[in-house]
Order: sequence, then structure tokens, then C-alpha cells
Amino acid sequence: MQDKHPHVVILGCGFGGLFAARALARAAVRVTVVDRTNHHLFQPLLYQVATAGLAAPAIAAPIRQILAAQKNATVLFGEAGRVDAARRAVVLEDGSEIGYDHLIVATGSTHSYFGHDDWARHAPGLKTLEDAFDIRRRVLLAFEHAERESDAQRRGAWLTFVVVGAGATGVEMAGTLAEIARHTLRGEFRHFDPHNARVVLVEGGERVLPSYPADLSAKAKLQLERLGVTVWVGRQVSGIDADGVQLGDERLAAKTVIWAAGVAASPLGASLGVPLDRAGRVIVGPDLSLPGHPEISVIGDLAALPWHQPPVPGTGPAAKQMGRHAARNVLLRLAGRAPKAFRYRDYGSLATIGRSSAVALLGRMKLSGYPAWLMWLIAHIFFLIGFRNRIAVLIDWAWAYWTFQRSARIVTGGIRSRPRP
Amino acid sequence: MQDKHPHVVILGCGFGGLFAARALARAAVRVTVVDRTNHHLFQPLLYQVATAGLAAPAIAAPIRQILAAQKNATVLFGEAGRVDAARRAVVLEDGSEIGYDHLIVATGSTHSYFGHDDWARHAPGLKTLEDAFDIRRRVLLAFEHAERESDAQRRGAWLTFVVVGAGATGVEMAGTLAEIARHTLRGEFRHFDPHNARVVLVEGGERVLPSYPADLSAKAKLQLERLGVTVWVGRQVSGIDADGVQLGDERLAAKTVIWAAGVAASPLGASLGVPLDRAGRVIVGPDLSLPGHPEISVIGDLAALPWHQPPVPGTGPAAKQMGRHAARNVLLRLAGRAPKAFRYRDYGSLATIGRSSAVALLGRMKLSGYPAWLMWLIAHIFFLIGFRNRIAVLIDWAWAYWTFQRSARIVTGGIRSRPRP
Repeated sequence: MQDKHPHVVILGCGFGGLFAARALARAAVRVTVVDRTNHHLFQPLLYQVATAGLAAPAIAAPIRQILAAQKNATVLFGEAGRVDAARRAVVLEDGSEIGYDHLIVATGSTHSYFGHDDWARHAPGLKTLEDAFDIRRRVLLAFEHAERESDAQRRGAWLTFVVVGAGATGVEMAGTLAEIARHTLRGEFRHFDPHNARVVLVEGGERVLPSYPADLSAKAKLQLERLGVTVWVGRQVSGIDADGVQLGDERLAAKTVIWAAGVAASPLGASLGVPLDRAGRVIVGPDLSLPGHPEISVIGDLAALPWHQPPVPGTGPAAKQMGRHAARNVLLRLAGRAPKAFRYRDYGSLATIGRSSAVALLGRMKLSGYPAWLMWLIAHIFFLIGFRNRIAVLIDWAWAYWTFQRSARIVTGGIRSRPRP
Repeated sequence: MQDKHPHVVILGCGFGGLFAARALARAAVRVTVVDRTNHHLFQPLLYQVATAGLAAPAIAAPIRQILAAQKNATVLFGEAGRVDAARRAVVLEDGSEIGYDHLIVATGSTHSYFGHDDWARHAPGLKTLEDAFDIRRRVLLAFEHAERESDAQRRGAWLTFVVVGAGATGVEMAGTLAEIARHTLRGEFRHFDPHNARVVLVEGGERVLPSYPADLSAKAKLQLERLGVTVWVGRQVSGIDADGVQLGDERLAAKTVIWAAGVAASPLGASLGVPLDRAGRVIVGPDLSLPGHPEISVIGDLAALPWHQPPVPGTGPAAKQMGRHAARNVLLRLAGRAPKAFRYRDYGSLATIGRSSAVALLGRMKLSGYPAWLMWLIAHIFFLIGFRNRIAVLIDWAWAYWTFQRSARIVTGGIRSRPRP
């Protein structure tokens, strides 16, 4: 009986995929959600895991658990290798296939090193929990190496942290790293003062947070500097290796570099056989479906909507809205009705910078400093998936705010070991 | 000034090393603590990380943070390769040396596969956070594989979990695995009922928890069976491979095997050049020092105390007592006084089995079931290092108790990936 229902396959269970699946909860369809991890990740707080402020389980909930009560949904832990649009099938990493009547592709984005893929091993980006563990490990180990290093110059390189790219992630990372050096680690080392650690935020464009109005960018820069971050704008990175960063003629010795500069679409988009934009994103029509394939929708960071003005940002709220919209269009089509065009509704933007520091843009209202930070805090707690996670995160944050301590300062493996190449 | 003080080096910062360091807090000595991880681990709750009940940061605190206020202590993240007792120096993994006036060796124990080291990759043990992540990953992935497996026999192997060894760790693991299958995962899979998963606890000896009185062992077995564990006592494992366990003529198909049977002393003991016992432990004198080397003490799981009756158990409380005692003997020697003989003070034993199930032995008092479990809960919360950890663990446990949910069900890496060989 159930098996006769149309089969909707959703690839990826980030914000887009999860909200698409949930929007189909009461529909007479079979839903299969495929994700290459077992958890839905609350990505806006991922930088907190990378900087030892939160434990991973606080921001990651099992997809299976989130969708357990949705009886029409099956969750498969697997990776979609490609889509065979002609045969209406998804081919998984082990060669097995899943047929579909409707497909929603929501596999998101990954880092782009602008053709310098060799930089990846020296400057990890921040998209997955593994990325966050990698960064946390590098940051914490850098201080450990500094404690064991007797040469002042080499110690300086261990105590220099470079963040490349001053979008929201880069700004958050830089602000939090400065807080760790100035407050969290105070008094814990005997051979140097962590207060002297240097955090440099390098941005190729002319200002930090380029998607915000110029006056908020200026306020963000000021707040970063007050937290102890050195901000370099209009500086292009021309090389990254194990010992530092090259900026044109200048060399910055740094053992820890974090990449927050470029984003590229998930490679799955290329297997759809339709036009992609320059970032590899799939160009979709007004109803989010593919030209010539109304049964396939692409949403979230993987989708390009060149016809939409102003541009749709690559954020969680945009992905959620697209996910819900694509699911509703599937139901309209199944009911024999015409799908609707997608319109992004902008509820505002918030970027946190560090302790009591943030900027917010809500329609015409601009906020910065403590009020913006408080708003950011409330919004992020509110949108966290799962009741328990919210409590855990609140406690961790309250604890961190009052004590300057960070609760997740775990490094596994020895001091010489390096995770992943 | 400070540098003229005698140098006490402590290798390993488990219960023994940490309590030794703390006991030296107000003494006129320089203390250097060397550990190959950056965290002190509350090992009695490690099985909770392995079974997704607690996040790692809840039971692991940075050694640096714990000892930050102890101004005479320096913490080094490094691994002691060997001890050069003649030259009074510890050689680290990178060849660098640390000279000492007094040395306290507390590097603990590791797994022993009784000469079958090839079993290690199929049956991980539980000593470190990395072990716990490995086990958590295998357990959670087994259910994911079962959901994707169409062959009933192969699915059965994914849904069979074997725990080898019915000491405290084995009993905890088996009881918790049964709870996960019967309660936590209920309703989350579409192709099988996790209630049908099988947890088999295999013990070579005649009863579970062999260090407890026979009647408590019997009660523990009953409680295990009530939780859904199949208990096999008097059965020797003769082989372990990727597809199951061999028990003499019988074959048990199981994709997940956990090793809780054997313990071997840290290999560092062998470099001391003194007699070891059969398990590789260093035989110490009544004051915990080495014969011929009064400036070296060995404590915790690495120490063998054949002269002590009844035998000192390989537990946290025993390690703490030895750590404190060794530190006090250092101070006695520095004051020109004779060191004292060590006497283990037994405050009782507690073993948890699962939800509301435990056994306790307190002097002549024997408890089992809910009262023992409650006592175990209170004791473990009380002894957890760090105030914040206690709150975090309490909340996680309360949540888990009421909802049957487990908060740390994170798997990183794809479904095909296997951690460490």
C-alpha cells in the first residue's frame, strides 16, 4: 500500500534537505533521505566546535532521531555518487541505486582554494565536524608546541594564527581565537604568555563582512581590533605552506592557517548534466526545478538563482526556505497543479565577532556591539535543532561567558600526529 | 630561585599522576607533568562516550587548566619514550630530555590480547578517548549497515554485538549496548527492529564480575539478562576476525566485537631496568619506590605490589592513593626523613550494569539493583573532575534517563570508512 506512493528522494540533510523532508511529513509520499553523515549539523555554530567552546554533540543531532516520528521517511547513511536523470535513479557510493519519482538535491557546498588545492592541507576550511576537529586540534597543539619550543622565532610562528577571508566564518574564527589567547589560556603556560599570540585576519577585498553595509563593516573591524585581532584588508594571499603565508612580497611566519575565503558547490551538481554557474552551482528555474527535468529540484548552497534580485545568500535561512518551497512544489505537481515561483524572504543578517561583539542588519535597522550580540545569541539558541541541545549550549555559553573557560579542549593523538593530509 | 628547587617529574596524568602533582602543590619543588594527551580522563565514565551517552569534553578536562593555579607545576604535552635511570633523565619521543631529582611514573596500562595482537583491529579495547570514538563509530555504523543490508544473514551479523570479558568494563558495555538497541534506537529504522539486535557477553571465567563475591556476580548476571544481554560464562574465545568470533568449535557471526578481557602494563616500565611481573608491571617496594632507586616511584596500574595483602585493585581510587602517597614520600625524603610504607584503603567497589542496575560492595554491605545504581551515580558525579563537567554529565544523564535518548550519536567520515587499522 505504502509502496505505491510516489517516491521522493532527498540528497543531503542540511538545512535545505531537512526542511524539505519535514514539509512532506503528512503527504502521501514515500520519502528517502540520503546523507553521507549520520547527523544534521547546525553549521552556524560549527566555529564554536573548532574553537573548543562546544562539544560536537551539542550542535549535531542524528538525522534518524530527528525524523524517527515521521513514518513516511527512511534515512539512509550513504553518499550519492551521481544522479542518472534519464533513468530517474541515484547511484550510491557502493554502486547500489535508488529510483525516484521526485528528487530534491541539497548537497551544499565545500571549500574552494581557487585552483590552489595544495593549500588545503595547510589551511583547513570549516564545513564539517571533521574540519572543526582538525582546526581545534591544530589550534590547541600550536600552543603546546610553543610551550616546548625554546627558539623565540619558531615559537613566534607557533603563536601566529592566520585566518584567510573575512566573511562571517572568518570574522567569528578570528574573534574567538583572540579570545582564547587573551583569556581562556591565561596563566596556563610557563614559557610564554598566550596574550602575546597574534591573530591576523586577511581579506582580499576592501572590507570585512563585505555583504554588510559599509558602516557595519567598519564597526565590525573596530570590534575585531578591540578583541585583539590584526585586520589586513585588500591583501591577497599568494601562497600557503607548512610554515606560513605569502602575501605578495611579504612573508608571514605562521604554523596555523585557517581558510574561510572560498566556497564551491558540491560536485554532485555536475552529474545532473545541466548548466552550472562559475562556482559550480546548478542554475535552477523560478520553481527551483531543473530546465527539462521538473521532477528534479536543487536547493540551498548548491542552487544558483540568477533570476532572483536581490541575490539569495548562501545561508541557513535561505536553504530552509528553498527546502520547504521545493517540497511544496512536489506536492503541487502530484496534485496536478502548477508549481510556484520561489521568493526569498529576508529576515535580516547577523554576524557574531566575539565576546559581546556582533553586527546585525534587520531591514533598515542596524545594530552593533552588545545588543547585536544578544540578538545573535537568542536567535541561534532558538533555531538550534533539538531541545536538549539548546540547554546544553546555553549552559556551555553561560559557563564560558562567566569563566572565560572553554569546555571542549580535547586533543586526541600525540603531539606529533597530524590528522588527514 | 625557583630553579634551585628539586625537580619532580611525573609521567602520566591519570588519577595517579594528577593526585601526585596536586599533593606537591605547596611544596618547595618544581613539578613537571608529562602526558601524551592534553587531557585528564575520567576513565570510569569512558564507556559512556563509547556508547554515545556523553560527549568527550564531559569527562576530559585539559591538564593545563586543572593545574593552571598550581604555580610550581609545568605541563608538557609529550610522550616519554624511556627513562634513563643512571643519568636521571626522561627521554621524550623527539629525543629531547628532561632531567629529574625525583621521578613518579604513572603511565598506566593498555590492552592485552594475550599474544593475539591481530585481534586488536577487529576488537578494540577501551582505554583512551580515541578507543571510545572508535567503538562508538563501530556500534552506530553497524546499525546503519543493517538498514542498508538486504540479506537477512548478513544483517544478523551487523546486529550482533560481542563483548569479550565480563569485568566492570565489559559488563557496563554489554548492559549499555542492550539499552541502546532496546530503547534508544526504537522506531528509527525501517528495515529491521533494533530490539532484535543481540548483545553477547563472553567470559572465560566461571562468572561475571569475578572480583566480586559470588552472590553479587549472580545478581549482576540476572540484571544483565533482564536488560537483554546474553551471558556466556566459561567460554574461551579462540579467534576474532572481521566477521565474527570463534569459541572452540562454535562460530558466532558478528561484525562488532569489543575487547574488555586483558590489561597489560605501559611499555615504559620495561625501560626502568628492574624486575617486572607477568603482566609487565613494575614490582615496587613498600614505599612504592624501585629497588636501588629510591628517587623513582611507580604508581597506579603500572605498579605491582606483591607484598600487599589483600591485592591492590587496578582502579582509580587505588591510583589516587598511590599518587598522593608517592608525593608525600618525596617530601619526606627531601626533608631527610624516612619514607612510609603504602597501605591501600578500600572504600568499597561499585559496578554499574545499565539502567537502574548495578552491584556494590561496601565493606560487608552488599547492594544490588536500584540502590546500588543510585550510589554509583552519586559517587561518579561526586568524583568527576571539574565543576562544569559535573553539571553537564548530570543533565545528560537526567535527559537520557527520562527520554532513553543518548546525546552523542555522532559519526564522522563516510559509512565505508574505518578508523585506524
